[in-house]
Amino acid sequence: MIIVVSPEATPEDLDHIIARIEETGRQAHISAGTERTIIGVIGPDAPELQDMFETMPHVESVHRVTKPYKLVSRDFHPSDSVIDVGLGVAVGGRELAVMAGPCSIENEKHIVETAKAVKAAGANILRGGAFKPRSSPYAFRGLGEEALRYLAVASQETGMPVITELMSVRDIEAVCRHAHIIQIGARNMQNFMLLDEVGKVKKPVMLKRALSGQIEEWLLAAEYIMAQGNPHVILCERGIRTFETAYRNTFDINAIPLTRELSHLPVIADPSHGTGKWGLVKPVAMASVAAGADGLMIEVHPSPDHALSDGAQSLTYELFADMMRSVAGIAAAVERSLPGVKAAAAAR
Amino acid sequence: MIIVVSPEATPEDLDHIIARIEETGRQAHISAGTERTIIGVIGPDAPELQDMFETMPHVESVHRVTKPYKLVSRDFHPSDSVIDVGLGVAVGGRELAVMAGPCSIENEKHIVETAKAVKAAGANILRGGAFKPRSSPYAFRGLGEEALRYLAVASQETGMPVITELMSVRDIEAVCRHAHIIQIGARNMQNFMLLDEVGKVKKPVMLKRALSGQIEEWLLAAEYIMAQGNPHVILCERGIRTFETAYRNTFDINAIPLTRELSHLPVIADPSHGTGKWGLVKPVAMASVAAGADGLMIEVHPSPDHALSDGAQSLTYELFADMMRSVAGIAAAVERSLPGVKAAAAAR
Amino acid sequence: MIIVVSPEATPEDLDHIIARIEETGRQAHISAGTERTIIGVIGPDAPELQDMFETMPHVESVHRVTKPYKLVSRDFHPSDSVIDVGLGVAVGGRELAVMAGPCSIENEKHIVETAKAVKAAGANILRGGAFKPRSSPYAFRGLGEEALRYLAVASQETGMPVITELMSVRDIEAVCRHAHIIQIGARNMQNFMLLDEVGKVKKPVMLKRALSGQIEEWLLAAEYIMAQGNPHVILCERGIRTFETAYRNTFDINAIPLTRELSHLPVIADPSHGTGKWGLVKPVAMASVAAGADGLMIEVHPSPDHALSDGAQSLTYELFADMMRSVAGIAAAVERSLPGVKAAAAAR
Amino acid sequence: MIIVVSPEATPEDLDHIIARIEETGRQAHISAGTERTIIGVIGPDAPELQDMFETMPHVESVHRVTKPYKLVSRDFHPSDSVIDVGLGVAVGGRELAVMAGPCSIENEKHIVETAKAVKAAGANILRGGAFKPRSSPYAFRGLGEEALRYLAVASQETGMPVITELMSVRDIEAVCRHAHIIQIGARNMQNFMLLDEVGKVKKPVMLKRALSGQIEEWLLAAEYIMAQGNPHVILCERGIRTFETAYRNTFDINAIPLTRELSHLPVIADPSHGTGKWGLVKPVAMASVAAGADGLMIEVHPSPDHALSDGAQSLTYELFADMMRSVAGIAAAVERSLPGVKAAAAAR
Repeated sequence: MIIVVSPEATPEDLDHIIARIEETGRQAHISAGTERTIIGVIGPDAPELQDMFETMPHVESVHRVTKPYKLVSRDFHPSDSVIDVGLGVAVGGRELAVMAGPCSIENEKHIVETAKAVKAAGANILRGGAFKPRSSPYAFRGLGEEALRYLAVASQETGMPVITELMSVRDIEAVCRHAHIIQIGARNMQNFMLLDEVGKVKKPVMLKRALSGQIEEWLLAAEYIMAQGNPHVILCERGIRTFETAYRNTFDINAIPLTRELSHLPVIADPSHGTGKWGLVKPVAMASVAAGADGLMIEVHPSPDHALSDGAQSLTYELFADMMRSVAGIAAAVERSLPGVKAAAAAR
Repeated sequence: MIIVVSPEATPEDLDHIIARIEETGRQAHISAGTERTIIGVIGPDAPELQDMFETMPHVESVHRVTKPYKLVSRDFHPSDSVIDVGLGVAVGGRELAVMAGPCSIENEKHIVETAKAVKAAGANILRGGAFKPRSSPYAFRGLGEEALRYLAVASQETGMPVITELMSVRDIEAVCRHAHIIQIGARNMQNFMLLDEVGKVKKPVMLKRALSGQIEEWLLAAEYIMAQGNPHVILCERGIRTFETAYRNTFDINAIPLTRELSHLPVIADPSHGTGKWGLVKPVAMASVAAGADGLMIEVHPSPDHALSDGAQSLTYELFADMMRSVAGIAAAVERSLPGVKAAAAAR
Repeated sequence: MIIVVSPEATPEDLDHIIARIEETGRQAHISAGTERTIIGVIGPDAPELQDMFETMPHVESVHRVTKPYKLVSRDFHPSDSVIDVGLGVAVGGRELAVMAGPCSIENEKHIVETAKAVKAAGANILRGGAFKPRSSPYAFRGLGEEALRYLAVASQETGMPVITELMSVRDIEAVCRHAHIIQIGARNMQNFMLLDEVGKVKKPVMLKRALSGQIEEWLLAAEYIMAQGNPHVILCERGIRTFETAYRNTFDINAIPLTRELSHLPVIADPSHGTGKWGLVKPVAMASVAAGADGLMIEVHPSPDHALSDGAQSLTYELFADMMRSVAGIAAAVERSLPGVKAAAAAR
Repeated sequence: MIIVVSPEATPEDLDHIIARIEETGRQAHISAGTERTIIGVIGPDAPELQDMFETMPHVESVHRVTKPYKLVSRDFHPSDSVIDVGLGVAVGGRELAVMAGPCSIENEKHIVETAKAVKAAGANILRGGAFKPRSSPYAFRGLGEEALRYLAVASQETGMPVITELMSVRDIEAVCRHAHIIQIGARNMQNFMLLDEVGKVKKPVMLKRALSGQIEEWLLAAEYIMAQGNPHVILCERGIRTFETAYRNTFDINAIPLTRELSHLPVIADPSHGTGKWGLVKPVAMASVAAGADGLMIEVHPSPDHALSDGAQSLTYELFADMMRSVAGIAAAVERSLPGVKAAAAAR
């Protein structure tokens, strides 16, 4: 940490700052300039120290020079993490992970049929919502544990691992029993109690970025999970909230290469939420893979105008299959693969 | 809801839309214009319907015409709600509620001393953090239940009701045992499971607005609590996240009069978080009361440069007392009162 | 400026950075830490240097330690600037400046009548738009020079100085001939050519903050004007663009006390644009004065539902007079005055 | 336009609204519902009408149903516009347009050498700044007309058309004399006087999106140019301002497919400004082409750590050539071409 002290500070002010640094078990290194005095704080940057020094008399500014996270950092783990999610699927390797399925699971037939359709088009992970975060208490909030059982059936019938959202510590056992990947939704990115708990299980966790989550906060949220002992963390960019009203969210394409530069964790793109409009899902999916995403999460529904939630951003089976063919072209150009798409093509 | 259909729609397309409206138990009222056909949907607006209709062929746009919340609405309850929080203090009436105290409770002596100091300056509710949401897993996260007991001691010694943040359903009993008001923090505004649970208790709940929470989402989060049977909800504006980096958050002054217009619930202003800089707390506190806030929440610490969290935005006892005198002047100008400030003055 | 160099840098890398610093005529002061090397750059911070150093190998971060503006800074001019705008009115002193009038000038009768009405209610400066920035090329764009002549008539009939927006260098002479204050609108805050030109005239200039203008950029835009020799600059906060859709703009109340802390220039609040809703104008005007604003700019129209622009945020004469009485109460509480309101009251 | 009237409106209130609609030369179509009355306004939506109706008593909301722009709309011109910019280069066709060069032109040798280097790597349009918008009045603001002459030399020596920014009507003749495409920068997107003037010349104009420009405002700004008679408009997405501080701007990838859906105008991506970090330029360039961009604008400098501006986001010759090879792979996957890259490869 670097503390910049204004020219008006007296020697006593400086001594006071230095004493405070030493109280924290750190050392101070003074560089007296012609105008300002610069104090280098030798020892680890701690989040609370910046605040503390900013309030001291004649301190003009405090600059952190180290990153506040460790375990998620590429400095700590230089090579890409590859997360084995079970049933032969890994996230973060050469093969792209494509998680597809409905926003909400509506009944057993619905999820099994959708699972077969997305698998035929090349998806390798099934997504489906059992517990749904909804802005309104009067909206459909998911079928809960019943839906988890339907999801398990769909997994068995297709051989695909499944991902579903966990919203409360209360449901952690049920979700772990039925799902291969636990999803932490955008609204819970900083639900620190929930992060601690999923850090204590051994399941892979996919952590979505909050609507107004800064990259650093998102990586610190992943650090919460890893700090509890669970290294199997996958990041997911799903669009941020901006001033633009033409789409539900603004997909932050910059976040894909930046998180890959800062961290060793794989990153998935969710263009369904990242745009909120089905017509934009395919081009933004293609863009994400071109920018280096390790996979996609896509909402698919047999009949979007009958979906119980998120119809406006869901693809039909046909649109999803079309998207997958286009994404496969991009994947080839960036030396990634989508083996399911080849298989699907071969099956025709 | 109003559905605008494009000129290219065939009679069959229109019939399909009308059939879908009727399947939901609503009626369609058609106005065929020269260019566009306008379909009025007669029956309650439901959150999922807008999405559903937007995906149908040739639907250009779907407009909601009713508000998605009911119980929190001023239409439903025209007069201001006044929330009795215990120990003779109410929030929402002529007297302003001033909640003051440290960000984190550090030990018994610290909270008792601070409680006495803020009471002497005119505060009527004690705030203090036992469970702290922190961006980093390595930051100080509060003393937990131990801090709740210290808070209870401070309440007894001063006669002030207390408010503290609840972060997890797990701690709800402990918090209810010791606190008069449960605070739901900004990061949990859409932690719907937690909202449901605090809706089932009888304690007053203060709901902070999320960093990127739209007014409508904030009121819907309050609706979650009320829909479970707890009518004692207090809103708290604490600044939003914008592009401006000169302050930690941007206090949204517009939200004060707008929530009072849309809702009967009282609204508290938190200029400590709303600015993140102690030098701005007093003018923004004054502004909030001028704009109609029902009270303030202020971070106070005996020695901000020793605070374990949020030092940069905490006031010393002297600065807090000075702020209270200035706020009292504004309160008088808007026909509100701060009796504690008069008492404090009389005591000198 | 402080340059933080990563542990991997070789002595040659360091020499390269030092050489580059010296090429710019500055000196380098090295502090070798256990992990990172910190280089203090002795000499003025220049905007382009930060960029330059950030691109050099092994530079981790570059921190500016001085403010990029000078003439607008309170360090440079510690006491408040008071701008004499003519006809006995000053902006920045104990008396609040209240600029009121229609968004667009519609005809001579309209502006003269409105001028008399706002003066009677206590306004001391007349505002009126001759050249209107409009998002659409098909909207009403103002009467141009004709409107400037009507404005001059209204000024003569009421004795009030007038303010109007300048959108183009082409119209600078005409605007200077008829107006006492030149307004630079939010969309032109970084129209640097226009800033240079209004810096060369002697008229007071009111500079509105851009929709996404950071405080530092806004002060630098004011610096453009002052750097050309015109010290008569007034700032105007008019709301920023955020994710919130419940109002047209989000009034940034924090900006009022912060600009007054950083700069000696007076700051005016425009709650008409800052909210975009007439029902919020009065409380936000009151809040602004409570927070330390030196005055207000308010849109007033005899019949807002007939206004050629900005009807939704305009006050009627009655609402404006009511607002002025409430603002006068706040002004008294913060030791400011609104003499026109007393006069108006006395006239009854 | 649709006007929703609240249940409290009396028949007289309704008559007043209808009369106001008819005064504007439009017709009212009434649908009386059980709760609300819906009034359809038959006739063109005008920007000022929405405002006007929103202020009328008992009007709950006003919804526009038509787009406010015409000439730029794909409804008006269904096929893609292809803009011939001269010297055999077109923007908007199968071949991608790649505009590359330095942020600022520093001297003749510098721009000629850079022109040759970017051409060799496959660029087909030369960019270079003569007039530079800079936040600070003390930063380097470009060499002005002198730089335009150097740009013309570089164009002649390489046969590439050139693009440069116009900041003021004063320089329009000089820029038209030397450049093939006039660039309107982000800060001038709503400099309506400048838009009018470039609408009167015959040169192609590239219009950058403002830092907080909504898609609709951006298309309306393009409409300003087309409404004056100049159909040769190119859009350029260059990143927007959000809460994220990890990059200078947030590139809005959603804007690429959405503007192509709404408009027939070609759209260029500027990942240099859209990220502000050279390490992100290549992946975001690849993403943009995958999402359907018609070309790229890239800052290239022989020695970014000596650049007079924007060094942090400039690519070296080697990095630019590497980016072009990767972009060519993506281009092939989306059936676009970059013939210059093949030529460059063949030349080796």
